[in-house]
Amino acid sequence: MGPGREFDRIRRLLGEAHASLADDVLVGPGDDAAVLAPDLVVSSDMALEGIHFRLDWITPHEAGGRAVAAAISDLAAMGAGLLGVLASVALPGGEEWEERGDRFMAGIRDRTEELGGALLGGDLTRSPAGLVADVVALGRTRRPLRRSTARAGEELWVTGQLGAAAAAVELWSGGGTPPPELRRRYTHPEPRIGPALWLVRTVGASAGLDLSDGLAGDASHMAAASGVRLILDESRIPVDPHPEVTLELALHGGEDYELLVALPGGAATQARVEEFEEVFDLSLTRIGRVEPGEGVWIQSDEGSPPRLMDRGGHDHFREDGGPTL
Amino acid sequence: MGPGREFDRIRRLLGEAHASLADDVLVGPGDDAAVLAPDLVVSSDMALEGIHFRLDWITPHEAGGRAVAAAISDLAAMGAGLLGVLASVALPGGEEWEERGDRFMAGIRDRTEELGGALLGGDLTRSPAGLVADVVALGRTRRPLRRSTARAGEELWVTGQLGAAAAAVELWSGGGTPPPELRRRYTHPEPRIGPALWLVRTVGASAGLDLSDGLAGDASHMAAASGVRLILDESRIPVDPHPEVTLELALHGGEDYELLVALPGGAATQARVEEFEEVFDLSLTRIGRVEPGEGVWIQSDEGSPPRLMDRGGHDHFREDGGPTL
Repeated sequence: MGPGREFDRIRRLLGEAHASLADDVLVGPGDDAAVLAPDLVVSSDMALEGIHFRLDWITPHEAGGRAVAAAISDLAAMGAGLLGVLASVALPGGEEWEERGDRFMAGIRDRTEELGGALLGGDLTRSPAGLVADVVALGRTRRPLRRSTARAGEELWVTGQLGAAAAAVELWSGGGTPPPELRRRYTHPEPRIGPALWLVRTVGASAGLDLSDGLAGDASHMAAASGVRLILDESRIPVDPHPEVTLELALHGGEDYELLVALPGGAATQARVEEFEEVFDLSLTRIGRVEPGEGVWIQSDEGSPPRLMDRGGHDHFREDGGPTL
Repeated sequence: MGPGREFDRIRRLLGEAHASLADDVLVGPGDDAAVLAPDLVVSSDMALEGIHFRLDWITPHEAGGRAVAAAISDLAAMGAGLLGVLASVALPGGEEWEERGDRFMAGIRDRTEELGGALLGGDLTRSPAGLVADVVALGRTRRPLRRSTARAGEELWVTGQLGAAAAAVELWSGGGTPPPELRRRYTHPEPRIGPALWLVRTVGASAGLDLSDGLAGDASHMAAASGVRLILDESRIPVDPHPEVTLELALHGGEDYELLVALPGGAATQARVEEFEEVFDLSLTRIGRVEPGEGVWIQSDEGSPPRLMDRGGHDHFREDGGPTL
């Protein structure tokens, strides 16, 4: 876990429970998901209308699909395969919500099946205001990919291109309509389960997480959890090439659900990277390095001194009370 | 699953997913919890302020404890032991909610530990209105106690005494204050994990569930899932002896979290029942029988003809839109 009020609170509230963890809990609170012996991974992810999504921007079916993809992305972030999900949904009263609720649940079911999982159950109840969903994803791994195990001397790599989902949100927020290719990156994020398994098995990824809060914020979680400093090369950040996407959005926008991993120096050879990109039709980019120290730093080019980055990630509890969408 | 709009919807929405259930899903949607091979049980239970609890009636710490006990009760209903829980919580903005959220989470953590489980993780986010929690309980069982396996010829038994929690809600709803002994039955429900294991192992319970919706409603779930008719002996229903508690509340009130089980005829001998009551300090009462047919029926005494019962259970989606508290 990194800095930030939400994480501080979760850590504080869960902290004392660590002592009572049973022997068959291999990874408890604090990582992307819990790992239960021998190899079960469990994660939960809550999505509230008006906070995490808006039904004047996307359809209920898309919102359901996003909610479940976000939960499953936490499995990818642990290097786990998908077994199934449980979805708890609360709906306001009224007929329009019957229909919306059905479409939302269908979105959850369809996306779960598309990703090869089973919808295992859940809970359906009433909400006093807005649609609320909590999705629990269950998966399996023999080699959990922790966020706390990055070591000085390693390389930082990221899958895919960043900033498109945040650009869609920015356009909607300004009253506009995002073009289809940006819209889809927001409505249909891809949990990177296959790529994560490859990164663990083929190039020995030593640490990793999924980018839900934004590269800067999530990198700070890895730095804090691993007790290291991360240095990003600004010129290497794979900013989505669409003209609406800026470096700022790639660094701070969130919602990309790509993977950030630490790899042993030299493990990702050019041949390996080409293999990865061919198999997954997805880029894999070295964006920095792990050093002794703390925090996330960025440097404009190889020669210039690194600057400490503002965390700036997505934080539902940030002081300014600004929109989190 | 029994009749009722909520169940129909869940069944309809989850139904198609059955086909894709992986081999290692032993029990999918439709029972109290999902069972994963070899023996893992998972259940989720959502609690929303204003729908499932009110913070002018009970403290945030009590509300957290109730939310987690309700989720763990689903494990008991499956004959499973507790491993741990994940709690997703959404809070409105504002300082009073910081404090309330902390107390709510502490209630979840304390009750989980009291019940021998570990808090495995969760999610903390913002809510546009009211506190929302979703608690996922994880447990283990080698012999799942299904709700769909009651057979004609068996006896119906119930643990504990019914109606006290609903009486507390009725008093609050009328502007009163429940006495401490009723209040506690609402704020501090006991998941019957030990009793459930005993009922499965010692007297071979063949089917069971926990009473969250009320005896009438939950019995109708068992009748529908098992394809049988259940006949209740009105005079045998163990109504809580407090003067505020009525038979009506015991039948329709909900929130008791006691167990309803089907036992093979004659399995629960007087000696066994005495053993149970001594070990668990909890009553065990035969309240009826399982017959071929459908629905839940009640008879005033042994000689009189059974009448078909109004289901009347707690239903968050019932047409009248009445309060579900």
